Amino acid sequence: MATLICPEEHSPVTDAEAIRKACKGWGTDEKALISILGHRNASQRKIIRKTYEEMYNEDLMKRLESELSGHFEKAVYRWMLDPQERDAVILHVAIKEKSILDYTSIIELSCIYSPHDFLSVKCTYQARYKRSLEEDLAQHCSGELRKLLLSVVGTYRYAGDEIDVKLAKSEADVIYNAIKSKEFNHEEIVRIITTRSKTQLRATLNRYKDDYASSLTKYLRDDGEKTANAFLGALRTIIRCITYDPQAYYEKVIRRALMKSGTDEVSVTRVIVSRAENDLGVIKELYYKRNSVSLDHAISKHTSGDYMNFLLTLLGNQK
Amino acid sequence: MATLICPEEHSPVTDAEAIRKACKGWGTDEKALISILGHRNASQRKIIRKTYEEMYNEDLMKRLESELSGHFEKAVYRWMLDPQERDAVILHVAIKEKSILDYTSIIELSCIYSPHDFLSVKCTYQARYKRSLEEDLAQHCSGELRKLLLSVVGTYRYAGDEIDVKLAKSEADVIYNAIKSKEFNHEEIVRIITTRSKTQLRATLNRYKDDYASSLTKYLRDDGEKTANAFLGALRTIIRCITYDPQAYYEKVIRRALMKSGTDEVSVTRVIVSRAENDLGVIKELYYKRNSVSLDHAISKHTSGDYMNFLLTLLGNQK
Repeated sequence: MATLICPEEHSPVTDAEAIRKACKGWGTDEKALISILGHRNASQRKIIRKTYEEMYNEDLMKRLESELSGHFEKAVYRWMLDPQERDAVILHVAIKEKSILDYTSIIELSCIYSPHDFLSVKCTYQARYKRSLEEDLAQHCSGELRKLLLSVVGTYRYAGDEIDVKLAKSEADVIYNAIKSKEFNHEEIVRIITTRSKTQLRATLNRYKDDYASSLTKYLRDDGEKTANAFLGALRTIIRCITYDPQAYYEKVIRRALMKSGTDEVSVTRVIVSRAENDLGVIKELYYKRNSVSLDHAISKHTSGDYMNFLLTLLGNQK
Repeated sequence: MATLICPEEHSPVTDAEAIRKACKGWGTDEKALISILGHRNASQRKIIRKTYEEMYNEDLMKRLESELSGHFEKAVYRWMLDPQERDAVILHVAIKEKSILDYTSIIELSCIYSPHDFLSVKCTYQARYKRSLEEDLAQHCSGELRKLLLSVVGTYRYAGDEIDVKLAKSEADVIYNAIKSKEFNHEEIVRIITTRSKTQLRATLNRYKDDYASSLTKYLRDDGEKTANAFLGALRTIIRCITYDPQAYYEKVIRRALMKSGTDEVSVTRVIVSRAENDLGVIKELYYKRNSVSLDHAISKHTSGDYMNFLLTLLGNQK
């Protein structure tokens, strides 16, 4: 259930002219840009980019980058990309543009997408950056986290629905014994979590809950350590991405991003821009159920200006 | 340059009848089987399997398994499979049917094939065994070897031809420093060898040779350790598969397999059966150049019986 509202027909030429006009001269008419681009689907946006380039001999993406700024610019830029290009950019930024690797979006894409779809993103990444996701990732992290992430992005998980009940039992025990002795980075935990099929892994984690009366993620915390432990955080994220329904997972991401003292705009942008044409409607419903506040309301409370207006437009507000 | 000699046209029905006759009653007419199956290409063999099953309501593969034995049976079985199925079987046997994991064929396929072709083999593996290659592999090895092999089969290497000269220099230095202090399993060595594009890695290894006047593989040996070290052996195999021409690599595999005091039939079968329809002619030429003995002669010296006759047939002997 998408939230994006867009006309069935549009004139790419008229759109390109209006965008050109909004960008011309001193200042930029952000409202005009939002009223056009915030109401066009992926294939319409693609045609607009092409038409704009043909008409004005100028790359629309570069123009938008130079006209806009801050979180608004980042949101519009991601929105204008093809979905696979957008995912490639998200991965690249997560790996290379921060002092600390942002493992969340890497895990999200590799664990929520099907192996086939994630491979397509990896191929787009290669075409865009002339390197593999794996080599960039491996270069920008180390130790246990590298081992975990390389295995999770590398494994082409089996996508069948078979469940091996005995295996679920024995691997639930393996995990329990490692956790009991606080060996969170035990290589058997990494092996099971990163290589088993999603169906099998869910069976194992259910079995864990049944036998040990607790969900695994609760215990993947090192009480002694006050600082955030990236390895454990990544492990919890993988488990969430695999066990939750995708929409429930995205709801949680947005909820946490808006709960933070400083709003986490990177996560808000990622979820809203990526899901507006997919299942943002369901995510909105789940958000309301869980928080008793509409997502629109929360967004308008925690963001502002053109950025807020753009997000609200993608969330299906007609204004 | 293939070595297989096969007719442009053949009658699948006549072939199926002849095979049935060769299998019937007491004893098996191995010569008849070789004279047919040893002269049919992949698509012809596929039609024969299908025709045989339709005519006799019996799986030809199972029949051949029950009629034949030893290395001859294994060679014929692999030969009768589709190329991708054959690779999947080779991987499965390498992981599961031996007490010690046979990393050679796993590395061969993942490093010599293109990422795309290797992925196809992984998908065939999943369809056949209802598990991913990665989970079976991870379950059957551990420690440093697991980390190395999971990364090598998981990384979808970038296949572009760009070379980053500075990176080649800096990573050659990284490798040298690790080797100098005998940290062969240094995680930076594993990262570089398993994630860089083949072109980039070749540049790095060339740079290593230039700067340190020695090839890396020579130093990937732990002099103190008499027993074979699987991790170092695997690392050397990866480097060979990536830096050698494939045919030169296969020549070396066959040479070593025939040099051993007990012939290594598994390797001999793998190379001859897999390459007979591809480049076995080139491998034969390289073998002769390097050993001053023809490969046919070496095969007839080190193998015998039906197994020998079958291999010689695939090598292009008309008898």
